Amino acid sequence: MTFDLLVHNTSEVLTLRGSPAQPAELALSPIARGAVGVRDGQIAFLGPEADLPPDASGPETVRLDARGGFVGPALVDPHTHLVFAGERAEEFERRNQGASYLELARAGGGIMSTVRATRAASEDELVAFARPRLARLLRQGVLWAEVKSGYGLNLEDELKMLRAVRRLSSEQPVRLVPTLLCAHAVPEEQKHAREQYVSLCLEEIIPRAAAEGLARFCDAFVEEGAFSPGEARRILLAARSAGMVPRIHADQLSDQGGAALASELGAASADHLEHVSEAGIAALSRTGVTAVLCPTSTLFLKARPYAPGRRLREAGVNVALCTNLNPGSAMSESVPLAMGLGCLENGLTAAEAFWAFTRGAALALGLGEAGRLELGGPADLVAFGCASHRHLPYHLAVDHARAVVRRGQVVAEQDVDCTSAGA
Amino acid sequence: MTFDLLVHNTSEVLTLRGSPAQPAELALSPIARGAVGVRDGQIAFLGPEADLPPDASGPETVRLDARGGFVGPALVDPHTHLVFAGERAEEFERRNQGASYLELARAGGGIMSTVRATRAASEDELVAFARPRLARLLRQGVLWAEVKSGYGLNLEDELKMLRAVRRLSSEQPVRLVPTLLCAHAVPEEQKHAREQYVSLCLEEIIPRAAAEGLARFCDAFVEEGAFSPGEARRILLAARSAGMVPRIHADQLSDQGGAALASELGAASADHLEHVSEAGIAALSRTGVTAVLCPTSTLFLKARPYAPGRRLREAGVNVALCTNLNPGSAMSESVPLAMGLGCLENGLTAAEAFWAFTRGAALALGLGEAGRLELGGPADLVAFGCASHRHLPYHLAVDHARAVVRRGQVVAEQDVDCTSAGA
Repeated sequence: MTFDLLVHNTSEVLTLRGSPAQPAELALSPIARGAVGVRDGQIAFLGPEADLPPDASGPETVRLDARGGFVGPALVDPHTHLVFAGERAEEFERRNQGASYLELARAGGGIMSTVRATRAASEDELVAFARPRLARLLRQGVLWAEVKSGYGLNLEDELKMLRAVRRLSSEQPVRLVPTLLCAHAVPEEQKHAREQYVSLCLEEIIPRAAAEGLARFCDAFVEEGAFSPGEARRILLAARSAGMVPRIHADQLSDQGGAALASELGAASADHLEHVSEAGIAALSRTGVTAVLCPTSTLFLKARPYAPGRRLREAGVNVALCTNLNPGSAMSESVPLAMGLGCLENGLTAAEAFWAFTRGAALALGLGEAGRLELGGPADLVAFGCASHRHLPYHLAVDHARAVVRRGQVVAEQDVDCTSAGA
Repeated sequence: MTFDLLVHNTSEVLTLRGSPAQPAELALSPIARGAVGVRDGQIAFLGPEADLPPDASGPETVRLDARGGFVGPALVDPHTHLVFAGERAEEFERRNQGASYLELARAGGGIMSTVRATRAASEDELVAFARPRLARLLRQGVLWAEVKSGYGLNLEDELKMLRAVRRLSSEQPVRLVPTLLCAHAVPEEQKHAREQYVSLCLEEIIPRAAAEGLARFCDAFVEEGAFSPGEARRILLAARSAGMVPRIHADQLSDQGGAALASELGAASADHLEHVSEAGIAALSRTGVTAVLCPTSTLFLKARPYAPGRRLREAGVNVALCTNLNPGSAMSESVPLAMGLGCLENGLTAAEAFWAFTRGAALALGLGEAGRLELGGPADLVAFGCASHRHLPYHLAVDHARAVVRRGQVVAEQDVDCTSAGA
């Protein structure tokens, strides 16, 4: 068979065909000096380059020379808030100079400042603001990203955010997975009428988002100052009845039993987990809920501790990493930064960190075919400018993706050489 | 006058014409909606765009539209080890999994592994390995970088490294400032004959490097396991007599009185300073020695504390930031990461962090004209894709430089939009 695209001259091709129950080094399932042949957007050959059929390459074949770098599946960012207006550099500065959370909120910072800016923006503006963020994710090799609402906090503006997500998903290469996060915070105007806002979520926002098919997931921020486990349970059960799958911002700033709640509700993921208890870890492990770690936020907020990634892996939990891109607690699209912090601060191995941004993240989003390479599957892959996935966290916070391929087409390319020299 | 290049449509132009004694916000000396006119590589206009002369732009004029972003002087990276062979991803992994420094050294890691690889590499290879690193620095807006030897640790290989630095400086846009760092470590073969190696430095390496004009500075790593203050004093005094200016790796892993020694010797800078004492800070302040902070290393080594940047500024010390790019303790060219950590972990303000990578760093290298913009000075500048320098640390670990201009010529350009949207 003659291929449309032939990826060759690799150090190895990581196929990620293993399971989260395996040690990550095995789960990456590498093919040394592998090649990938693509036909009609699908993987038609996946094996050692030496085993390529003699007619693999013809005059029409696009040859992608990996120049000794490794090739892996396209990346998946399983937790972002990349649709928003405004920015919070001032708040970042104040926090670095010692201001407390309360002082920041009093000075007009916090989620509510982003809610005000996002409500004031049109859908068109939200789309325009998000484009460069998606372009940065794409350049790094991301072809799937989850995006949450949660800066609207009323019917109209939550739907506006989700419609912006839908438009963005259709107009550029990164496919977006929409999550309704009306339970992000109680809006200012209902600060003294929480139950009224919970009712709005239950009776209007969730049904409308479901009716318009705008969200695959529903998320809730379970935290003191946000939503109680009881409120979150009501909201997520209603969302589940409406056909959305629950996920939870769990145990970020304190142990609220968020992990246990995620397990109870059959959530797709429990995200953050900086303060998860041993009981919470055991619950995730028992029920197969993915842990999505957000180390960039821990750094960005000057919060501690980082989530216990090592402990979660030892307990057999599927661990994913994300950028958590958002204007308040993680203003960064950098995948290599999150991978590096995942190793430095969450205690993951390089193999676990790569799994966490590919197959581990795909499982968190219920994406059957994403985050791995297999014969007959979609040819969504990245040729990296370095010889090993180990260089991604090690060569910290720099871009490593040389070419990003979506369904067999090169959709992003840059001159990258991160071979770390002489090795 | 008609300009060769006209930079217009800025939010502001930061000129950095202040002094380190001023609060950094003032020292940045911004010009709101400023423009820069360039003629023959020099700045021929620097002021509000509204004040441009009517004949500023002719048919030959290259117009650089800043698209509402800010413009500042080209960046200066005052401390790197960017010439080396080999990589140490394995060591990074082991450290993240809990291995101690001693275990790493026993497993063949540490500086000596880079020394072995660098000795084995030819000068041509060292040049080739360093090129992509310089390209990454350039893309971020760096037009000056200090580079140290120190992985040769014998006459031949120290000179080979410095010759590689000289060649690299002449073949691409980033101008390199060479530093002899023979006092980086005692090489393995002289582990039990320290004095022999110190004599080699004093009698051969320093004189030869000076005779060939290969180094502007001489640096010494003052630390337990490296060089004692007494050994460093002898080496740096010899270097000073030979015409090099001292600088010191000071108080990184423990308080060795490195800051006081830097002050005593009239060093250009004391670098690292994680464990500097109050007496050391006072000495730097009294003698006007620049503190060069390396926060990427503190993160990368999982070391704590970070250097007391806030305290140093309060004491009136000129503070610079660097990448410290090297394969063992800071494998990262990311300027925004170092700036972000400078704010998050060293306690600098955004204005201080920008100063620290421009004028503050130029002062650390004794570069009179670099790191600021002034009429008649060289047109080395960067047009950033964001509206304010505050977005550089805030929008963490992503590239912000849209166009890099060296002597009036655009030497790097990329499609960057970091306006953080709607602000």
